[in-house]
Amino acid sequence: MILSLDKQISLSTLSEVNKYIHKVKIGYPLILENIAYLDNIVKLHWDEIIFDLKLADIDNTMLFIASKFINYADSFIAHSFIGIEGALDKLSEFLKNQNKSLYLVLSMSHKGWNDEFYPYLKNIAKTIDPKGFVVGATRPNMIRIVRNDFMDKIIISPGVGAQGAMVGDAICNGADYEIIGRSIYESKDPVAETKKIIETQEVKINECKRTEN
Amino acid sequence: MILSLDKQISLSTLSEVNKYIHKVKIGYPLILENIAYLDNIVKLHWDEIIFDLKLADIDNTMLFIASKFINYADSFIAHSFIGIEGALDKLSEFLKNQNKSLYLVLSMSHKGWNDEFYPYLKNIAKTIDPKGFVVGATRPNMIRIVRNDFMDKIIISPGVGAQGAMVGDAICNGADYEIIGRSIYESKDPVAETKKIIETQEVKINECKRTEN
Repeated sequence: MILSLDKQISLSTLSEVNKYIHKVKIGYPLILENIAYLDNIVKLHWDEIIFDLKLADIDNTMLFIASKFINYADSFIAHSFIGIEGALDKLSEFLKNQNKSLYLVLSMSHKGWNDEFYPYLKNIAKTIDPKGFVVGATRPNMIRIVRNDFMDKIIISPGVGAQGAMVGDAICNGADYEIIGRSIYESKDPVAETKKIIETQEVKINECKRTEN
Repeated sequence: MILSLDKQISLSTLSEVNKYIHKVKIGYPLILENIAYLDNIVKLHWDEIIFDLKLADIDNTMLFIASKFINYADSFIAHSFIGIEGALDKLSEFLKNQNKSLYLVLSMSHKGWNDEFYPYLKNIAKTIDPKGFVVGATRPNMIRIVRNDFMDKIIISPGVGAQGAMVGDAICNGADYEIIGRSIYESKDPVAETKKIIETQEVKINECKRTEN
């Protein structure tokens, strides 16, 4: 599971949650709320800190933004839609040189996203060859398609909980990680909620594995 | 003309440039360099302060980000490709309620951008009905198409100077404003460069008007 942290929670709580969830995704809401909080986050023991800035600009601008967070981040999320030349080519090269990873958005979780463009985005993804992809948990069919097209890539899946997808569904359809945010950080007891979600996820995954066999 | 300010310049210089250019576009490079500088920018006499954050996320996240800058901004730039439901619908409604404006990106200035999707983006633009659009100055043909499709909308056009388009070309093709950044803020004498660019633009516009008649 990946914790999407869009709001500060107390460091003691975050430290407890971190015992169960080892990857964290950070975006502008948290950065703009308190950029100094990043220093506290990186002190915990994360396997991966993903900067979800939905990079979608010309190369010059994206490189400037990524540079600012390069010492905090293991990886960055960018939109594939912007295309390669003068945009993703330079970003991808820059991150490789810095030993950082890239995820490309292939399908978003909200209703208005249009998957008609997937064949185009897929070609961009093949050329850029990033670490993985963002595919909304609300789109199980797209998760299956992307899994089938990119067997060796990591699929991370937002939209679980507050946005409507059920815990475990994205994994059952082929995602590697479910991204959970508001259900945890807006909970009165984030640690208890984390444990509950992980249990629910395990039950669900065991169920769908059984069905497959 | 619109000044794209991605780097701090001295306030006295900015104040001089502001006598010639009355709109300014601000993005994450400047915000992340020194967020306190925004307080100085707003004290000058701008007709419009455009926040170019290339918003391209779910509604919840975009509203959070826009809220953070709502007291500094007259308008915000978002990507049209993210679609309406759960994204641009809520952003557009929020900005209207706050008496702020929205520009949608219809065509970017870098080579890798693909204009095949313009018919789809155009439909989104018609539904959202924003103040205006971003169309790269490097794509004169797209400026003409968007001008023809949206006679009463403002077209702002980045990509002039450092990115390769010539001063005046976007206006001659139907844009309302050319966005100029690096040519000015990276110049040794930004005020002289501003005057020079404005003169060049005027000459060019007079030329193309003559050709039209």
